[in-house]
Amino acid sequence: MMETSTVRANNRVKGVLAPVVTPFTSTLEPDFVPFLKHCRWLLAHGAALAIFGTNSEAASISAVERLRLTDALLEAGIPAERMMPGTGACAVSEATILTDHAVKNGAAGVLMLPPFYYKGVSDDGLFAYYAEVIERVGDSRLAIYLYHIPQFTQVPITLSLIERLLKRYPGVIAGAKDSSGDWGNSKAMIEAFGADGFDVFPASESLLTKALAIGAAGCISATVNVNPGVIHALFAARGTERMAELQEKADRVRRIFQTTTMIPAMKRVIATFSGRQDWAIVRPPLDALPVDKSAMLLADLEAVGFAMPGLPRY
Amino acid sequence: MMETSTVRANNRVKGVLAPVVTPFTSTLEPDFVPFLKHCRWLLAHGAALAIFGTNSEAASISAVERLRLTDALLEAGIPAERMMPGTGACAVSEATILTDHAVKNGAAGVLMLPPFYYKGVSDDGLFAYYAEVIERVGDSRLAIYLYHIPQFTQVPITLSLIERLLKRYPGVIAGAKDSSGDWGNSKAMIEAFGADGFDVFPASESLLTKALAIGAAGCISATVNVNPGVIHALFAARGTERMAELQEKADRVRRIFQTTTMIPAMKRVIATFSGRQDWAIVRPPLDALPVDKSAMLLADLEAVGFAMPGLPRY
Repeated sequence: MMETSTVRANNRVKGVLAPVVTPFTSTLEPDFVPFLKHCRWLLAHGAALAIFGTNSEAASISAVERLRLTDALLEAGIPAERMMPGTGACAVSEATILTDHAVKNGAAGVLMLPPFYYKGVSDDGLFAYYAEVIERVGDSRLAIYLYHIPQFTQVPITLSLIERLLKRYPGVIAGAKDSSGDWGNSKAMIEAFGADGFDVFPASESLLTKALAIGAAGCISATVNVNPGVIHALFAARGTERMAELQEKADRVRRIFQTTTMIPAMKRVIATFSGRQDWAIVRPPLDALPVDKSAMLLADLEAVGFAMPGLPRY
Repeated sequence: MMETSTVRANNRVKGVLAPVVTPFTSTLEPDFVPFLKHCRWLLAHGAALAIFGTNSEAASISAVERLRLTDALLEAGIPAERMMPGTGACAVSEATILTDHAVKNGAAGVLMLPPFYYKGVSDDGLFAYYAEVIERVGDSRLAIYLYHIPQFTQVPITLSLIERLLKRYPGVIAGAKDSSGDWGNSKAMIEAFGADGFDVFPASESLLTKALAIGAAGCISATVNVNPGVIHALFAARGTERMAELQEKADRVRRIFQTTTMIPAMKRVIATFSGRQDWAIVRPPLDALPVDKSAMLLADLEAVGFAMPGLPRY
C-alpha cells in the first residue's frame, strides 16, 4: 500500500487547474467544438482541466451529457492525465458511474462533491457515501479530491471526515479543493494532512503565494478559464522573487471578475475575445450577464490591459 | 386552452398522496418487489403515489434507476393516473427526460423541484428552467406541481414565480406541494391561486382540516407511507363532523414520527411491521435509525395503538 501511494503521489496533478466553463448552443445543448478548443487553449497555457466543476455548470449538465463530453475530449486526444473531472452526485450510483468512467480512462483524479440534497447529514453518512463509491469502483488507480464548497452544498467536508477517510483509504483520498473562501480552513487542511500527501487546492489564485508557502498543491480557480498564463506563471515562479509581481498581476484581474457574477462574466468575456457570441449562453437557472454589467466588466478589464493571448477566434 | 384546462382539472389527482419510501437491498440496490408491494398497499388504503419525493430518497436514486423502477411499476399494472413522480433535477436535460417519460406513460402529474445546486438564483432563471422543460416536453397532457421545500433546496418557489408561470402556462402549471411547514405560505398559495385551478398540497396531514377548509387539494405527506388509511379517511370525511376525531387520530401518529428522523423512522417501522428487515436500509448520506431510538419509536407507537392493517408480510 505504501509503495503504491508513493508512486501515485509522484504522478499526481499539481499546479493550476481550470474548472472549465462549458459552452452551450442557442438551443442549450452542450457544444463540443468550442469546449475542445477552450480545453486546448487552457492546456497550452499551463492549466490542467477540472472539467465539470461548479464553474462548468456541472450540476446543470446530466451524467449522460458529461460522459459524452468526456469521451469526445479523449477521442480528440486531450490527455486524461491532465483531467480531474467532477464526479460527485447526490446519488451514490451516479457518482460511481462517473468516477468509474474517469478512472478507467486514466484521469489524474476526480473532484467529488458530497451528496448535496439532504441537509444536516452526519459525518457517518458522508463517510459511508464516499466509502461506497470507492468500494464500488474498486480500482487502485482511483484518486479522490474532496470538494468542500459549503455555500452551495450546505454539507461541509470537515477535518474529522477527512481524517477518517484518509485513515481508511490512504492513497485513494488524494486531496481536497477548498472553495469555502475561508483561508483559515485551507490552512488547517494543509497543516493537518499535507504531510500525509493530501494535496490541498484553494479555489482562488489570490491565495496562491501564501498557500504554496505552507504546502498547498496549487489552485483550482474559476479565473484560470480566462487568465491561465499569468496564473500558471505565478505557480511556476514559486519560491522566487517574481511571485509578488505576478500575484499582484493575477489579483488585478481576479478582483474585477469578483465584482460581478463569475460564471456568466467569464463566458461573456470568452464570447467577446473569441468572437463566438454563443459562448455567453448559460443554462438555466443561471442568467447571462446583463448588457450594462457586461460593458462595465469589459471596460474594467481593458483598463488593466487584460488579454487572452492565442484564444481561438471563430 | 380553456376547455382543455377544464377537462384536465376535473381529472386531476386530489386527496392523499404518499412520497413512497424506496426499499434497498443489503447491497444498496433499489429493491423492486417490496416497492411494488408497498405501492399496492398504499393504493388499497386510498393513497396515490408521489414516487421519488424527498422521503423516497429520490435525490439518492439516479435518473436511470428511477426510470427502471417506474417502468417496472407500470408493467406490474400500477395505474399511471395514480402516480405523481418527482422529476425535478439540477440539469434541465435530466428533468426533461424524467418528465417526458412520466407524461408519455400517462402519469397524473409530476412533482418538480427547482434546480437546487446553485443558490441565490433569480426568478428569471427559475422561470427559464421550468419553461425549458415544458417546451422540450411539448405535450399538452403535462401537469406540473411545483415543489417548494426551501429547507433542502434553499431555492424557494415564490408567489411571484408561480404567478408568472401560471400566466404563461395555464393548465400545465397544475399546483404545488408546500413542504415549507409554514402554514402562512400554504394559505397564501391557496388564496392567491386556488381559484385558478392551482392545486395546493401541504406536506403534512396535520394541516389537512384547515387547508381543505380554504380550498387545498389534499396533502402529500411522509406519514401517508405508514398511516394511509386514517389519513385518507380524514380527507374523505371533509366537511363532516367526523373530521375533528380523525384529525386528532392522524396527529397522534404524526407527532410521534416527528420526534425522530422521518425517513429512517418510517423505514424502521415498515421493516418491523412487515418482517422484512431490509426495509430499514437507507442509502448514504442518510443513516439508519439507531437501535435505542428505534425501540423508543416502536414503544411510543404501540402506546397509541398504531397499526398497519393488511401490510404485506415477508
